[in-house]
Amino acid sequence: MKLKSALSAPEGWETISAETHFEDAHLTVSTVEVRSPEGLKVHRWTVVRRKAAVIVAPLTADGKLVLIRQERVPIRAALWEVPAGQVDDANDTDTDKLAAVALRELREETGYELSEGGEVLPLGHFFSSPGFTDEQGFFFLARTVAPGASGSSPAESESILDCRAFGPEEIASMIVTGEIRDANTLGICAKLVARGLLSLDAQVFSDGPA
Amino acid sequence: MKLKSALSAPEGWETISAETHFEDAHLTVSTVEVRSPEGLKVHRWTVVRRKAAVIVAPLTADGKLVLIRQERVPIRAALWEVPAGQVDDANDTDTDKLAAVALRELREETGYELSEGGEVLPLGHFFSSPGFTDEQGFFFLARTVAPGASGSSPAESESILDCRAFGPEEIASMIVTGEIRDANTLGICAKLVARGLLSLDAQVFSDGPA
Repeated sequence: MKLKSALSAPEGWETISAETHFEDAHLTVSTVEVRSPEGLKVHRWTVVRRKAAVIVAPLTADGKLVLIRQERVPIRAALWEVPAGQVDDANDTDTDKLAAVALRELREETGYELSEGGEVLPLGHFFSSPGFTDEQGFFFLARTVAPGASGSSPAESESILDCRAFGPEEIASMIVTGEIRDANTLGICAKLVARGLLSLDAQVFSDGPA
Repeated sequence: MKLKSALSAPEGWETISAETHFEDAHLTVSTVEVRSPEGLKVHRWTVVRRKAAVIVAPLTADGKLVLIRQERVPIRAALWEVPAGQVDDANDTDTDKLAAVALRELREETGYELSEGGEVLPLGHFFSSPGFTDEQGFFFLARTVAPGASGSSPAESESILDCRAFGPEEIASMIVTGEIRDANTLGICAKLVARGLLSLDAQVFSDGPA
């Protein structure tokens, strides 16, 4: 299955000009002028291009989500997040290949692996901040997972401080308190809830930390 | 109430160097070298700085969420999203002032206003892609809202194509199908569900579009 619509040039959008200001291994910053299908007006916009990512919700046999605690340099904080990693080949949006990347990231970042008879379910994709970047993430559910024999092997630069499995009530509470506060984890939780694959129930806090 | 932790310099993080490559009215791209509290290793990282945003979930008296359909130049697509807007003063993270910005964006983008006796509930903040940008969004629930007398007045550059109110079942279905696929809307939905303020129920689709 191809997820063509996510990456190919969308119909009716016309590029008038594009000027690149900065480019390195991680991102490209350009000013583009484009005309949309709906309007006659030309939009002039600063755009940051990034590789796509895979984002995986690893579900254990006892219904817990495996999260990593990861240092994030741009915000100078460590967050509890679902495992994720970038896709090296931007044109390779074949779902099976993305699922394989998701399982590799899972193993590297958490040491967990898909159990015998387990499955990887594609849950669609999302855009992290479409007002300024084309970055998108492809969501996958991996169920069930269990600690593998070989342990985790995160790249040194990833700075993963901890890894733990959390039950749905804990996940809901961490969303309410803001311990979970990244788009990947909130986004995949919304997907899982809407699909009936995760219940966050009603964790009603009267006036606690938001 | 101040949301200090979100923006102030976090304890233990040491900046060793910072080189700015590009800067315009919308973003700043730098390479930074920092040392985290946990490690002796120096991280060298490309960081994109952006203004913070306010993101508002407008709930009508009949329990529907008001969404706008907005053209997004970086991804060349129009998405159904909750209203949102940038905060001009990065240091002004006073919740009451952010709530006022949220209501202004709501009025400008949708024409909806807070009803008599309505409230704006802060739901915390999130990071859109903390692997490369410090951009964060502050979530608010505005309830209840109703169409105002003066209608919407979006800035011309915003390219809002449509505005409609959707019930929870429609929202869940749009998340499943991918019609809703931006971090702001998925993120605030996860927050609302975890707080018991929105029910997305179980919209179980056997093997439909993900």
